[in-house]
Amino acid sequence: MWSDNSFSQKVGIKYPIIQAGMAGGITSPELVASVSNAGGLGSIGAGYMTLKDLQDTIQKVKSLTKETFSVNLFTPEVVTVDQAKVDQANEWLSHFRHDLNITETPEVKTVTDDNFKQQIDLIIEENIKICSFTFGIPDQDIIDKLKSKGILLIGTATTVDEAIKNEEKGIDIIVMQGSEAGGHRGSFLDSHQTSMIGTMALIPQVVDQVNIPVIAAGGITDGRGLVAALALGAEGVQMGTAFVTSLESGSPDIAKQAILKSHEVSTVVTSTFSGKPARGLNNLFIEQMSKYEDALPQYPIQNTLTQPIRKSAAKEKRIEYMSLWCGQNLRTLNSKSASDIIKDTVAQADKVLGQIK
Amino acid sequence: MWSDNSFSQKVGIKYPIIQAGMAGGITSPELVASVSNAGGLGSIGAGYMTLKDLQDTIQKVKSLTKETFSVNLFTPEVVTVDQAKVDQANEWLSHFRHDLNITETPEVKTVTDDNFKQQIDLIIEENIKICSFTFGIPDQDIIDKLKSKGILLIGTATTVDEAIKNEEKGIDIIVMQGSEAGGHRGSFLDSHQTSMIGTMALIPQVVDQVNIPVIAAGGITDGRGLVAALALGAEGVQMGTAFVTSLESGSPDIAKQAILKSHEVSTVVTSTFSGKPARGLNNLFIEQMSKYEDALPQYPIQNTLTQPIRKSAAKEKRIEYMSLWCGQNLRTLNSKSASDIIKDTVAQADKVLGQIK
Repeated sequence: MWSDNSFSQKVGIKYPIIQAGMAGGITSPELVASVSNAGGLGSIGAGYMTLKDLQDTIQKVKSLTKETFSVNLFTPEVVTVDQAKVDQANEWLSHFRHDLNITETPEVKTVTDDNFKQQIDLIIEENIKICSFTFGIPDQDIIDKLKSKGILLIGTATTVDEAIKNEEKGIDIIVMQGSEAGGHRGSFLDSHQTSMIGTMALIPQVVDQVNIPVIAAGGITDGRGLVAALALGAEGVQMGTAFVTSLESGSPDIAKQAILKSHEVSTVVTSTFSGKPARGLNNLFIEQMSKYEDALPQYPIQNTLTQPIRKSAAKEKRIEYMSLWCGQNLRTLNSKSASDIIKDTVAQADKVLGQIK
Repeated sequence: MWSDNSFSQKVGIKYPIIQAGMAGGITSPELVASVSNAGGLGSIGAGYMTLKDLQDTIQKVKSLTKETFSVNLFTPEVVTVDQAKVDQANEWLSHFRHDLNITETPEVKTVTDDNFKQQIDLIIEENIKICSFTFGIPDQDIIDKLKSKGILLIGTATTVDEAIKNEEKGIDIIVMQGSEAGGHRGSFLDSHQTSMIGTMALIPQVVDQVNIPVIAAGGITDGRGLVAALALGAEGVQMGTAFVTSLESGSPDIAKQAILKSHEVSTVVTSTFSGKPARGLNNLFIEQMSKYEDALPQYPIQNTLTQPIRKSAAKEKRIEYMSLWCGQNLRTLNSKSASDIIKDTVAQADKVLGQIK
């Protein structure tokens, strides 16, 4: 069965499993390479990376695998600073900073797409085969440029209309992110609230409306989820949370442990950390900040403001102030290597298929 | 494959498909019988029925089918009237009543479990084989009484802990309601917000934790969903929305038409109609009442207060004031007979199984 999969053939991988390009240091070169070496598609989460970081990471991954891997970028929005909102947010954040002995307030400035454009050029230079996007669709000139180099483009969407828009713009493959998914919501057309569609409902509605391959994401951690996604009409799956707790993940151990002992009811969707809705474990920071959620600076300004808090909290093992992104399927997770996750997922999928048929 | 299914064998049906016992007149005797005659499990949604209505409905179903069907009951909560809240709600509701020329304000009184106990006795008298519950688990004496008569009991849960509690109390089969599901949320332990778990994430976590058969509900409308649910470890599916728009459904035509032309982003979860969270199409009533959501009388008091509004709105075809319960998988719906829904679902499931392996 696996050798027939058209998505795998298109991408040049053995099994139709994408490791999500999670930003913030989770996708270590070892994780990306381990996934690709095992036959899946490893992905560098380059969303917040400087050009230098991305270049170093790509080099490191290349030294660890000869297989195909991808780079995930955040489609940029040009955002100007609303100083009154920033001042207010800094006031609300001051007691967290105080508690962590952070004396400086991060500098915020107008966000441009300069870094994104340089990332695109680097991807071309480095001869990366697959490039994926979160938070919307890049401008047509960027899409055309990448496609003219033969780079395969993967978009992210949370509704049928967002998927159709990706197809119209020339995106080759679409990852459909169900409401179960951990981390940031990829919604870019409808509001976050109306775009919280469960994977079981989302996939059949999308595959009926688009002609590009659909990849299911959200709530999938094992072979059961893989077979379910294929049954719904997807050609593959993207798994994020399952790899967050893998041995190779760059996630801090304290975060991995917290996620591994959590349950399906442990997560919330919050904008308090970054200014954009994202799913993760509920904690004190979220509880204390959620009342200000509608008045916070927009993404990525709020992300910049909370960055030292999250970084320092991770260092001090203060889990109550960390962003602990993860999805709703937590009881099925365990701590093993990323290559074993791929291997076990495929083996379980084969077993499930034998059982239900 | 279908003849091996242990849930079907246990219940005495051909295909592991339950038609949800939706209350409020949707589950006409014709719908219930059509499902059971086609090999699924038809269910009478008796939640709001008087004893007389339930008796008439059971008789009618019996005249239309010799196959097994079930009765779904709402596990009662004893609720006393908070008159200040009722007065306030009546004030907020007055302009809807005025707009519909409703001159009387419904009488509300303390809610007891008298009707529920009589429904239980009737189910025993009528020799009903399967009884299902929503909104929690009945008292142990009720469970013991039904089980002593050989009646198979189906519970409803939205989290793993709720499923475990059902199993501990002796419930035989558990329907797991994912966040995609239409109509009322069956949550009874955790808050509604934390219990919004997508079906894809919910089912694997539950099947790993309980030994009774698990039935997947939420976002499933066709054979793709059936196979996906089986892959996740469920032994069957419960479909509600798919049957709301069936030819035999008792839903008003105007509601069916509105649901049939809606999309995955058209629904919201609201307590404004009944005092309990339920998923349905967003409309003016919900938009205008949602700001009072936290101050409304609790279920079923609020349900009583809005009942004449919903009834009159249906009669006047004023869709903006009706409760239009449905789930998130709407684009895949169509208008056909319930027996064709069962037949087509099974045929599609067989086809899907052939394709994915």
